[in-house]
Amino acid sequence: MPDATRLPPFTPTPETRIRRHPERAHYDRETVFAILDAALMCHIGYVIDGKPYVTPTLFWREGERLYWHGSSASRMLRTQAKGTPVCLTVSHVDGLILARCAFRHSLNYRAVMAFGTAHIVDNPVEKAAGFNAFIERIYPGRTGHMRAISAQELKATSLLGMTIETASAKIRSSGPLDLEQDYAADCWAGTVPITQVVGAPVPDPIAPPRTPAERDAGHFPEGGRFDDILLALVRR
Amino acid sequence: MPDATRLPPFTPTPETRIRRHPERAHYDRETVFAILDAALMCHIGYVIDGKPYVTPTLFWREGERLYWHGSSASRMLRTQAKGTPVCLTVSHVDGLILARCAFRHSLNYRAVMAFGTAHIVDNPVEKAAGFNAFIERIYPGRTGHMRAISAQELKATSLLGMTIETASAKIRSSGPLDLEQDYAADCWAGTVPITQVVGAPVPDPIAPPRTPAERDAGHFPEGGRFDDILLALVRR
Repeated sequence: MPDATRLPPFTPTPETRIRRHPERAHYDRETVFAILDAALMCHIGYVIDGKPYVTPTLFWREGERLYWHGSSASRMLRTQAKGTPVCLTVSHVDGLILARCAFRHSLNYRAVMAFGTAHIVDNPVEKAAGFNAFIERIYPGRTGHMRAISAQELKATSLLGMTIETASAKIRSSGPLDLEQDYAADCWAGTVPITQVVGAPVPDPIAPPRTPAERDAGHFPEGGRFDDILLALVRR
Repeated sequence: MPDATRLPPFTPTPETRIRRHPERAHYDRETVFAILDAALMCHIGYVIDGKPYVTPTLFWREGERLYWHGSSASRMLRTQAKGTPVCLTVSHVDGLILARCAFRHSLNYRAVMAFGTAHIVDNPVEKAAGFNAFIERIYPGRTGHMRAISAQELKATSLLGMTIETASAKIRSSGPLDLEQDYAADCWAGTVPITQVVGAPVPDPIAPPRTPAERDAGHFPEGGRFDDILLALVRR
């Protein structure tokens, strides 16, 4: 995979140029990829019969390409050989901003909007490789402990992919930005951090697992930050 | 606000009927509203010039209506007096599902897709009331400690709203669902819970707040589950 820091930034287009709070905008690949790689869930926007659909789904990145699991929109995509324009959006909630006037209350967050043309991955070999790569991305070595995906299983799930044509990131990461004239307000002002964290693993209650959680899920330690762990898995 | 449990469920339409994993589908208001009310961030899908845009933004519910903060799409919406079809999607990541074959790996989640026609709220009185209601929803009593929103501030932010025309929820909340023939696989199987939690409050580093965090943000205690706190704030 090429070093993202050595590639040029995405070029802002009318779609991705951030007009509201342009000081929060980033177009470089390093920032965009770091936000994408710290997430497992994205929200995909499709247009079907002129109407918008936003589907939450699992996704992963490979270089300049994004892949995601199929959804109810997949059958409609299947009929469109030329592909379908999509917007794939990822967001992380990082904190509540309590300011000294209503208007300046805000949220710390990291978000990416990535635009491209989605295609269904139909080739079964490519499809199986994609799903296995996703398992390995989150659980390194895990596919070695499991049987191969069957032909029937492959048919039951859609895999979609797109090359990122353009993308932008938006980040807010400071405390409250109050007006000096509001400093006297009789209230607390600051940041309440919000993070996604890992809980204690729960073994399958139906059939007790044969190995300890530590070996297979030890890289998701209780109390760990989920986004940091996901990012480190890509960077390793 | 009418008791959601006494209203009929949303009627599934071609847009909202869940075809993939229909056993995970819910159309009753109680379930849909509980998922919406446990979140602060949503992803809004718009269509502009035939292309999809998915914007993450803050939102809140009032009965059958959803409101959210404006975005770069707002200026385009402003020109459309009849309103614009949108899909407002909310998702919560609840856990990683480690199964005994690649295909059955999954995610525990709660998600809602809500469809409606978005309008800009232009009336300044209604707009100010909306923003204040949102502050009060998260920080009860807080607007009483702050000056009123100025006319200039009101102009700088867009408020959008829609009545929910139809909606569906999708929930996965069990452990792995493996085939018996896979039980012998040499791997751990189970759930790794993921939750959004509250961190320790960070006072404004620019101007030290005049009151302790406890009074104004004490209902977001360190270590608390963010979704549970938000839901309880609506239910109080």
